[in-house]
Amino acid sequence: MAGGDPSQPAIVLLSGGLDSATTLAIAQRDGFAPLCLAFDYGQRHKAELEAGARVAASFGAELRTVTLDPSCFRGSALTGGGAVPKDRPESAIASGIPDTYVPARNLVFLSMALGAGESIGARDIFIGVNAVDYSGYPDCRPEFISAFEETANLATRAGAQGESFRIHTPLLHLGKARIIQLGTELGVDYALTSSCYDPDAQGLACGRCDSCALRRKGFDEAGVIDPTRYAPGALA
Amino acid sequence: MAGGDPSQPAIVLLSGGLDSATTLAIAQRDGFAPLCLAFDYGQRHKAELEAGARVAASFGAELRTVTLDPSCFRGSALTGGGAVPKDRPESAIASGIPDTYVPARNLVFLSMALGAGESIGARDIFIGVNAVDYSGYPDCRPEFISAFEETANLATRAGAQGESFRIHTPLLHLGKARIIQLGTELGVDYALTSSCYDPDAQGLACGRCDSCALRRKGFDEAGVIDPTRYAPGALA
Repeated sequence: MAGGDPSQPAIVLLSGGLDSATTLAIAQRDGFAPLCLAFDYGQRHKAELEAGARVAASFGAELRTVTLDPSCFRGSALTGGGAVPKDRPESAIASGIPDTYVPARNLVFLSMALGAGESIGARDIFIGVNAVDYSGYPDCRPEFISAFEETANLATRAGAQGESFRIHTPLLHLGKARIIQLGTELGVDYALTSSCYDPDAQGLACGRCDSCALRRKGFDEAGVIDPTRYAPGALA
Repeated sequence: MAGGDPSQPAIVLLSGGLDSATTLAIAQRDGFAPLCLAFDYGQRHKAELEAGARVAASFGAELRTVTLDPSCFRGSALTGGGAVPKDRPESAIASGIPDTYVPARNLVFLSMALGAGESIGARDIFIGVNAVDYSGYPDCRPEFISAFEETANLATRAGAQGESFRIHTPLLHLGKARIIQLGTELGVDYALTSSCYDPDAQGLACGRCDSCALRRKGFDEAGVIDPTRYAPGALA
C-alpha cells in the first residue's frame, strides 16, 4: 500500500494488536501519511512490538519504537505486578478496572505522540482506543480523550497559536466484530498482529487472557477466520 | 535535611534549576517524602542533570533520572534546532513563545510523573512552573495545569476511583526574586543549581541566555548574592 499523502502527516499509535492495525489502515484510507509510534515500556508481551513492526511494514508506514522507563509503569499485570488473569467470563471482563491496567499509559503515549507530532508538523494523532470491549480502562473512555485533546492544545506552541491538534479515535464506539470486518475490508492482515497479554516465548497466543477472549469472540462474530497463532493446547 | 514523611509520598519534577530546587524544598517543608524525577530528553544543557543530582542529594531525596527518546522533542533551540537566543531585552523575553520551547515537554514530564506516582501510591505531584517570568511557554500557564489535573484524574485508575491526583505549582504566581528569597529561607543552596540554557563543557553558565538573564535579575532584586558559576568573560 502507499504511504499516504506527505502533506498530511499523522502520528499513529501502533501497539501491534488488532485495534491499532485497523486504526493504521483507517488513517491511510483517509489520506494521512502515518508515522507509527510503538512503545517498549517493559511490557511482558514484547511479541506485540515485533507484530507492530510487521504491521507497519505491511502498510509501508514508517515506524519509530520508543523506549520508556519501566519504573514509571509498575503495578500492572502487564509489567510484572502479578499474573495476567485468565479464563474470565465476559461479565467479569466488562466490569471494573482490570489488573492489566497500566498506570497512565495512554496519557504518556498520547503525550509522546504530541511531542513527536509537533516536532514533525503533524497535527493529527490516531489511537485505537475502544470503549465497548475494554470499558474497564479509564484511559479508553471518551471523556479522557476529550480532556486530553483540550490539554494538548493548551500544552503546545501549535495549540496556543491556533493550529489545533486532533485526536482521532475511529474505533471508539465499535464492537470487536465490526472492527475486524472494517479492517478486513481495508486489507489488514490480522495474521501479522498480536493481541495476547501473555504470549509464550515464540510469541504464540495463550488464548485465555481477556485480550485473547475478546479477539476470538470478535472473529467468531465477524464470520472471519481467526488467523491467530495459538500456543499448543491453548484452545483445549 | 530529612526525607519527609514516608506516608506522604510525592513526585517532584527536578530539572536542577533554581525553580525546581525551590519546589523540592517546599514539598519537603510541607511534609512530603519526595521522589524526584529528572529527564534526559536530549537537551543541550546536560549540566542541569548533574545539578539535579546535587540538589536531590542535598535534600536527602531519592532521584530517578528517566531517559526519553529525543526524537519526540525536536525543533527547539534546547534540542539542537537552532541557536539559543542571547542578550534579549526583558520585553522580548516576556513576549511570544521563545525558541527554547520544547514540544509537549511539560505534558510528557507530568504524564510520566503521574505513571510513577500511581506506581508508588503517590497522589501529589510538584512542578516548578512559573507564569510570571516565563509567560511565553504555553505549558507553564495555569490553564494548562488545570486541564492536566482534570485529564490526569480521568486517565488513571486512582482518579477513576476517586483518589484524586493533585498537581502542586507553588511557584506559579511568584516572581524570581520572591522565589529566591523563599528558597533561601528554606535552605536551598543555589550554588548547586544550574539554570543556563547554554552552559560550556564545564557546566559554567553563559550569563546571556533568557534563563541566565532572569536568574541574574532575580538574585539582584532579592538582595541575595548570586552564587552562579559563570564562564570566563560571560558577564563582561
